[in-house]
Amino acid sequence: MNRHGIVIEDTFAEAFGMQATRVIITAPEPRWAREAAVSMTGFATSVIGCGVEAGIETELAPEATPDGRPGVSVLLFGMSTKAIGKQLEKRVGQCVLTSPGSAVYAGMSAGERVDLGRKLRYFGDGHQISKLIGARRYWRLPVMDGEFICEESTACTAAVGGGNFLVLARSQRQALRACERAVAAMRRLENVILPFPGGIVRSGSKVGSKYPALPASTNHLYCPTLRGVTDSRLAPEIGAVLEIVVNGLSDEDVRRALRVGIESACAAGRESGVERISAGNYGGKLGKFHFPLHEVMA
Amino acid sequence: MNRHGIVIEDTFAEAFGMQATRVIITAPEPRWAREAAVSMTGFATSVIGCGVEAGIETELAPEATPDGRPGVSVLLFGMSTKAIGKQLEKRVGQCVLTSPGSAVYAGMSAGERVDLGRKLRYFGDGHQISKLIGARRYWRLPVMDGEFICEESTACTAAVGGGNFLVLARSQRQALRACERAVAAMRRLENVILPFPGGIVRSGSKVGSKYPALPASTNHLYCPTLRGVTDSRLAPEIGAVLEIVVNGLSDEDVRRALRVGIESACAAGRESGVERISAGNYGGKLGKFHFPLHEVMA
Amino acid sequence: MNRHGIVIEDTFAEAFGMQATRVIITAPEPRWAREAAVSMTGFATSVIGCGVEAGIETELAPEATPDGRPGVSVLLFGMSTKAIGKQLEKRVGQCVLTSPGSAVYAGMSAGERVDLGRKLRYFGDGHQISKLIGARRYWRLPVMDGEFICEESTACTAAVGGGNFLVLARSQRQALRACERAVAAMRRLENVILPFPGGIVRSGSKVGSKYPALPASTNHLYCPTLRGVTDSRLAPEIGAVLEIVVNGLSDEDVRRALRVGIESACAAGRESGVERISAGNYGGKLGKFHFPLHEVMA
Amino acid sequence: MNRHGIVIEDTFAEAFGMQATRVIITAPEPRWAREAAVSMTGFATSVIGCGVEAGIETELAPEATPDGRPGVSVLLFGMSTKAIGKQLEKRVGQCVLTSPGSAVYAGMSAGERVDLGRKLRYFGDGHQISKLIGARRYWRLPVMDGEFICEESTACTAAVGGGNFLVLARSQRQALRACERAVAAMRRLENVILPFPGGIVRSGSKVGSKYPALPASTNHLYCPTLRGVTDSRLAPEIGAVLEIVVNGLSDEDVRRALRVGIESACAAGRESGVERISAGNYGGKLGKFHFPLHEVMA
Repeated sequence: MNRHGIVIEDTFAEAFGMQATRVIITAPEPRWAREAAVSMTGFATSVIGCGVEAGIETELAPEATPDGRPGVSVLLFGMSTKAIGKQLEKRVGQCVLTSPGSAVYAGMSAGERVDLGRKLRYFGDGHQISKLIGARRYWRLPVMDGEFICEESTACTAAVGGGNFLVLARSQRQALRACERAVAAMRRLENVILPFPGGIVRSGSKVGSKYPALPASTNHLYCPTLRGVTDSRLAPEIGAVLEIVVNGLSDEDVRRALRVGIESACAAGRESGVERISAGNYGGKLGKFHFPLHEVMA
Repeated sequence: MNRHGIVIEDTFAEAFGMQATRVIITAPEPRWAREAAVSMTGFATSVIGCGVEAGIETELAPEATPDGRPGVSVLLFGMSTKAIGKQLEKRVGQCVLTSPGSAVYAGMSAGERVDLGRKLRYFGDGHQISKLIGARRYWRLPVMDGEFICEESTACTAAVGGGNFLVLARSQRQALRACERAVAAMRRLENVILPFPGGIVRSGSKVGSKYPALPASTNHLYCPTLRGVTDSRLAPEIGAVLEIVVNGLSDEDVRRALRVGIESACAAGRESGVERISAGNYGGKLGKFHFPLHEVMA
Repeated sequence: MNRHGIVIEDTFAEAFGMQATRVIITAPEPRWAREAAVSMTGFATSVIGCGVEAGIETELAPEATPDGRPGVSVLLFGMSTKAIGKQLEKRVGQCVLTSPGSAVYAGMSAGERVDLGRKLRYFGDGHQISKLIGARRYWRLPVMDGEFICEESTACTAAVGGGNFLVLARSQRQALRACERAVAAMRRLENVILPFPGGIVRSGSKVGSKYPALPASTNHLYCPTLRGVTDSRLAPEIGAVLEIVVNGLSDEDVRRALRVGIESACAAGRESGVERISAGNYGGKLGKFHFPLHEVMA
Repeated sequence: MNRHGIVIEDTFAEAFGMQATRVIITAPEPRWAREAAVSMTGFATSVIGCGVEAGIETELAPEATPDGRPGVSVLLFGMSTKAIGKQLEKRVGQCVLTSPGSAVYAGMSAGERVDLGRKLRYFGDGHQISKLIGARRYWRLPVMDGEFICEESTACTAAVGGGNFLVLARSQRQALRACERAVAAMRRLENVILPFPGGIVRSGSKVGSKYPALPASTNHLYCPTLRGVTDSRLAPEIGAVLEIVVNGLSDEDVRRALRVGIESACAAGRESGVERISAGNYGGKLGKFHFPLHEVMA
């Protein structure tokens, strides 16, 4: 299979079952919702190193938020509801509660509950006030610029982490340009985030290493400087490989994002320097979601 | 004392002794150095909640970086060299190593060493290469888009965290505008960061709370909605208070930043809605650095 | 007079009487109001070269706009109401009418009227609809994504253009850092814009030149590379001079902006490399507004 | 023909022969090259209303610019070399010469020459200095922050303006999201610009109107609010149409950009709300370049 002359390899992306939640941060002005969200979702590229994988899903117009103010929706993915709850408490407390004019709401209604305001409310030192609107409880905490409004809890859902594809190009610059096109297009989709900086990963890893203590190490098969030194999956014309990792609320969300990304990465054709599209997997043994590229692109 | 009609209270900001380091992230293009730095310094507003306080110090032109590429300098503050080292390893590994085309270097030369590449190098799975240039050791790790260059270690220095001032204004919006002016001006200074989202804090806290388990809670003395309910330091005309927190490499750096911030916050005069400038302290008992506002502004 | 050791020269900025208007651009999302405003206010640094001086005044929260959507307010300055009207028609037609989801409203009510939608309405090809709400008339034009809403006219007011100050520093980089601090603080003020790119001018000019056809040329008195070659106002330690130009709706608006700018530029003290603050004038003969720096900073 | 269930209409985009040039703006820091470029390419959406169509092509790493500093490349399209020259003189003089630390260079070498520094040099008031390096002449003009370096001329080339496609979707929001994905991907391509604000046009026009003086008016065939009132090309389910316009240095550049844009707009499938892709033409009588969508997407 190919797209505009670029080979789509007959392989599959292997992804994992995770838990996910969505929260909505609002503020008097869009900039301030964004500041809180950027801070809250920083240092959140992998569950192993950061405890959570998080990112901004989308900016929200005022009519799309619970309090009619400009907002940002954030997705967090973790290995369990408990792990998400722990991260949520810390990250909302450090990065949203502190941010001028902010409020935070549940962005999902169905599923297991995780605390949002339930513990944070104690920061009010007894002056916090609870309000029940329908089935949803909110807390109002006195702060220096007025009140911090915080919904008591949000919901978690089963989700998918680690969907991915690889762009193999003739040069670093060409791989980067193609991935930037893909990321730009994928970031306009709902229900997904790209947890790595700028949406792109250049340090693909394999399970295990020659050092017993290290559970993962560089994926030498895809390192151009190691071609000739080790086994390699890279033809001589490949100068650089970059990966895009996507987490989504459902397998369908991930599949759509992969398709959008691969179409965008390939649409400029072979003259853009992109030679092949591949995907990362562990032989199918680790992750319960498989995304065969030829099916994704059908 | 007053500035353009705005009262500068006769009080002092109380700040703490910390350790700090600087690292320099470079990339083929400025955008990518920034992406890595934003990710690495996210969720880093307070040592207690995040393990580290971090922020972007400045963007660097190519001639100001070790490898002649565009870069960003990042400052990290922690309670000890060890704590900084631990955070550095995690955050560089998760947010810089992973980012397209990145490299990372020491941004300080004198002081106790903390690891930068010393442990990260094992990701190279034995294919990493060491290079000694003068007294500085660098590691080259094979990755999918080429090599990740990483200096072996960086230096730590004694530093100052928690410098601060408070802006008391008639409305939330007016306090925010004045603080935005202050932050914008302070962010052009070297040797300092403002660790909170957008540089501003609205959830000032006091030590202790009515809940034994909670070591800190809302500073009710500065909460406008609690005036009349509790003791208050807020005159009736004050509608909102915002705080700016600054960490710096020396007390002189913090002092200069406070001065720049307060001048900028006050320069639009009382008609801007700003009424008073104050500062946060614990009676002088907790932090070893005191910044009397009247001295700062002399 | 000095500020934190930096000399404030005993001179004055000379500014001009102009006309000005404000329009408010809204959109379904803040980003799209900004895109339209950035396009509309581009290539608008001086009336002589561009026909108008324009800039973004501020971003507006939904509750501050006529239609409850996120917005941006734009100020335009010209030599006459007629000149502004002509530019408004072209720039709104090219950059706002065309922009997804946009609407445009008067941002001033008192003063001479200039057309906003009155001529643009004909683009509707007879399908435009007029609506009168109170004393204000609006037009609805059918476009491909729905309707373009456009108020019939906006108001003009007498205003002030060309307020300015000069930052004399030891190096280009130091002058730039100080001006960036000043610009950042000044841009948080209402009723003013800084019409030059990034708010800063480095090509200060004098009236006349050795070429008869050229009405203005480089102000050699402030060019560091000409010191020794021509007359100079620059002491040997001055390596670079940058200027900040500000237009405002009233002389008080300009005065406040100059004060905010100079305070921010000086607050980091002489160690920041800033040596002196001066201002540009034509001996007081050309412009009817004079801003003596010592009065501004009193 | 369809893409992921979205119909690609069997029609063609009609584009025009234009002239184009490229200039490269550099500065000590990327931000300042960008500021100058954004200002210079503002108010430049159509030759008829603005005299030129201009946009940022790409940001340039230091190693890709003539002086080894960070830069931005800008493309300008006009109806003739003369028209481009006139705009170039004004826009460089107003927006680049004025901008801190800037320099400007030819971004094309082959083709008819247009002035860049040839007239601007007189601003130096006789103190300008010429330097010939190989076949290229440069001017150094003394300015307040040092010198403005400006190449004497740049080259023009025959080019293509007005390539386009239309996204027909069920709602305004869905059309906008799809176009944002397309724009984001197209903006990573070389040799093309999207001259409208944010890359998108919502006010598609037809030639002529019921008012004799007006040469163009709203394209009623694609206005959803006029369906039922006038002839319409919109099926009942279409709620909004948006257009993307692309100018490129060659027909192949435009074709590639259209393909990248359409693939990105369609890749999320029909569930994204996009129903059809069409294109704008004048029956083939006005523009000499035709881009049949089915060939573009083959």
